[in-house]
Amino acid sequence: MTEPLTVSDVQAMLDGSPFIRGCGMKVVGLDAQALEIAVSMTMRPEFERRAGTGQWHGGPIAALIDTAGDYALALHAGGPVPTINFRTDYLRPAVDTSLTATARVRRAGRTVGLVDIDVTDDAGRLVAVGRGTYGTTAG
Amino acid sequence: MTEPLTVSDVQAMLDGSPFIRGCGMKVVGLDAQALEIAVSMTMRPEFERRAGTGQWHGGPIAALIDTAGDYALALHAGGPVPTINFRTDYLRPAVDTSLTATARVRRAGRTVGLVDIDVTDDAGRLVAVGRGTYGTTAG
Amino acid sequence: MTEPLTVSDVQAMLDGSPFIRGCGMKVVGLDAQALEIAVSMTMRPEFERRAGTGQWHGGPIAALIDTAGDYALALHAGGPVPTINFRTDYLRPAVDTSLTATARVRRAGRTVGLVDIDVTDDAGRLVAVGRGTYGTTAG
Amino acid sequence: MTEPLTVSDVQAMLDGSPFIRGCGMKVVGLDAQALEIAVSMTMRPEFERRAGTGQWHGGPIAALIDTAGDYALALHAGGPVPTINFRTDYLRPAVDTSLTATARVRRAGRTVGLVDIDVTDDAGRLVAVGRGTYGTTAG
Repeated sequence: MTEPLTVSDVQAMLDGSPFIRGCGMKVVGLDAQALEIAVSMTMRPEFERRAGTGQWHGGPIAALIDTAGDYALALHAGGPVPTINFRTDYLRPAVDTSLTATARVRRAGRTVGLVDIDVTDDAGRLVAVGRGTYGTTAG
Repeated sequence: MTEPLTVSDVQAMLDGSPFIRGCGMKVVGLDAQALEIAVSMTMRPEFERRAGTGQWHGGPIAALIDTAGDYALALHAGGPVPTINFRTDYLRPAVDTSLTATARVRRAGRTVGLVDIDVTDDAGRLVAVGRGTYGTTAG
Repeated sequence: MTEPLTVSDVQAMLDGSPFIRGCGMKVVGLDAQALEIAVSMTMRPEFERRAGTGQWHGGPIAALIDTAGDYALALHAGGPVPTINFRTDYLRPAVDTSLTATARVRRAGRTVGLVDIDVTDDAGRLVAVGRGTYGTTAG
Repeated sequence: MTEPLTVSDVQAMLDGSPFIRGCGMKVVGLDAQALEIAVSMTMRPEFERRAGTGQWHGGPIAALIDTAGDYALALHAGGPVPTINFRTDYLRPAVDTSLTATARVRRAGRTVGLVDIDVTDDAGRLVAVGRGTYGTTAG
């Protein structure tokens, strides 16, 4: 039995990935028992869909969903797991706001697991949802 | 009846998006009749999954899939369209390679359309596939 | 402003579909305000994956998911809506049990809506989940 | 090294499933080398969306997609495999027609595989597409 991962453990793992660190993703909460994690990302001009609009492009939202889902299962596996596939649904434009992805493991099986991810804006509105299948062994 | 979009038309649209331009995505081929487009992206250290591995993180691959799918329908709509949802499946690690996403419209309906996207590496191996639902009106 | 649909209204709509009626799907609860509905289905030998096992084949589970999702949005649209696409994830075998699909609208937009569907067995275990995009106009 | 499966081998497997046999699914072609299979299904009144319309309900179409995808991987695994998840997109109404699902393995990995499935009507029009993740070990 190993110790449950803490916010700083997971943040260190995120920061070990040049892509994730470059996006500025931050762990803002986790529940190691419930296999839930919250990851935030702040708007930057380079994430804009069109210049000067303040609207997020879908690409960084999908990356946030994939990452939050992965690290929810990392709470189970002890480290990041391979993404097998994920679905992203965009529900509302996200404009002039940071984003928080809350990921919750629905099932962690022997070889694969399923995670649901909700993305909300600063006003708590749901802007996108994700659902992903991941391996359940870190590596 | 408007003129079919050319590679340079679509490249100009891509470059109008700070996110897409920042990722360095390039249109490398299109067939305006068949509603097919190919978009490439070159590896950079900031796209790495882990430092020094040369392996693409899934985030930029998903962004490439979403964008290629969107601009395949742009050939139909005359400009970029809203992504409703898309599914990304990762099939093999992509290491030390650029990536090319080839997107093909399977159906362009009155309000929504479906696009399939295959992502290959420099050796022509399939590394990921996407399937997305988009609106069919530019805006 | 029309009257909210009741359980018997929706059951009558289900029974108007030869396929759904033939499967024996029953509305067992709804919340017209929250756009949530619960639909149940009883095991029959013709739904078995393999003869004599009592295990549900995935096909009828997918059909239950699609239908429950559709009628959750029917609470919004006043009648069944076209399914655009849906994803089904199987989490555990369902054996010797009836199934209940609980569908909840996550977003009902002008032209499309998104619904999440959880399928549980008689013991309340989650056996499958669905997520679907539907039109939001009945027809 | 075992013998490649033939049409009659796979038909016998289909018929071993009460659900699949009850739907009347028939193997109409396969390529054991390419991991491709074609499965057909004939319209019946009990598959109708609404009585007397001759239009297929989406439920049996999803079941056909799932089954064709499964048996494409069975050509690799030697027998039917567990479905992990699949996505179904409906592209056109299917009316007064039989349906043929053509399934093609895109990737068969050590533990999971991905299959694409196209469903066409008697006129060869694409009415729906599927994409599914399955285990790659029969059982």
